[in-house]
Amino acid sequence: MSGFLISFEGGEACGKSTQLKLFTKFLEENGYDYICSREPGGTPLGEQVREILLHSKQNLSPKTEFLLFSACRNSLIENVVLPALKQNKIVVLDRYYDSSFAYQGYAGNLDIKDLKNITDFAISKTEPNLTILLDISYDEAMKRKQKDQNLKNLDRIESKPKSFHEKVRNGYLALAKQNKRIKVVDAKKSAEDVFNEIKKLFLTSYKNN
Amino acid sequence: MSGFLISFEGGEACGKSTQLKLFTKFLEENGYDYICSREPGGTPLGEQVREILLHSKQNLSPKTEFLLFSACRNSLIENVVLPALKQNKIVVLDRYYDSSFAYQGYAGNLDIKDLKNITDFAISKTEPNLTILLDISYDEAMKRKQKDQNLKNLDRIESKPKSFHEKVRNGYLALAKQNKRIKVVDAKKSAEDVFNEIKKLFLTSYKNN
Repeated sequence: MSGFLISFEGGEACGKSTQLKLFTKFLEENGYDYICSREPGGTPLGEQVREILLHSKQNLSPKTEFLLFSACRNSLIENVVLPALKQNKIVVLDRYYDSSFAYQGYAGNLDIKDLKNITDFAISKTEPNLTILLDISYDEAMKRKQKDQNLKNLDRIESKPKSFHEKVRNGYLALAKQNKRIKVVDAKKSAEDVFNEIKKLFLTSYKNN
Repeated sequence: MSGFLISFEGGEACGKSTQLKLFTKFLEENGYDYICSREPGGTPLGEQVREILLHSKQNLSPKTEFLLFSACRNSLIENVVLPALKQNKIVVLDRYYDSSFAYQGYAGNLDIKDLKNITDFAISKTEPNLTILLDISYDEAMKRKQKDQNLKNLDRIESKPKSFHEKVRNGYLALAKQNKRIKVVDAKKSAEDVFNEIKKLFLTSYKNN
């Protein structure tokens, strides 16, 4: 497999959207051939299920959520990611399966081994070359959020309690300890500092690919 | 676990809807406490995903389909089936996981072992006590269909080619050989004869439960 797959991960208000914008602008300006997609979403199916996952008033259990995410993930891999990698492109993903391990696994109390087995089935071994984990404490993230937007506009997952988001963060950090491809970036720093670190990590990993 | 779970399975135009009506009427008239639900569907999530699965113009691979079905199955089990079984009710299901094994596994060429592992995760070991398999050849089924309704109204799965539906049938028959709970009923017979056989199978299995 050629191409290069980079995923961006992190909890609420970690600055992921800002960094994705800066990173894709950098790729654009430097003539890299890339696509950028998001999870859940990125295909017609993914966008339909995204609506259900983020805005449904139904009570969805972590298992139901995980299986829905896995269906979208499979559709995204088959229809968007694999074709782009085959064309030697850089694929930038706004969330990938580490999100499920952190949110439905560590925070939703599902067995990570089960999630790994089902993910293997869903993604046909399409692992990221590099994963950027934007790490920030819940309190820092909330401070940032209050400055940026109305807290009433939280989606179904964002509006879960502090204890949930702390489990998500600890889950992400545990995953980073187990997987060399996951690089932890201190997201409390300025957007510029964070971006410079991401750029450095990308260039090193891309060169060694 | 108390209660009794009976699922109805079969290919296109096997007479499943007719038999489900006759069977639930029988339960009703004889004072059994029961609920009847369908797959995909039976919960708000299930009905939303049903729309995608049966009427989407997108190309959905067997893997994507299976993961979507598994999400709905999990939601149906957690919210509808388990609560009813706990209240000692009879639960009648119009399709259950054998459908996935036949359609996405045998006909869609996915590995049945993978499907079994993911199904175990999705259904928390909620196996049917009895499964009625309404067996009919593709040619007989199509003859029946042409009499009954406009062939233009086929959904995304019904409109697949003959070879697909023959694999579904052979898959179902292979499953019946491996699982004692699956009883094959010759669906070419009259609706009355088929129903009498189903009633007999149910009464024997329910008594021994």
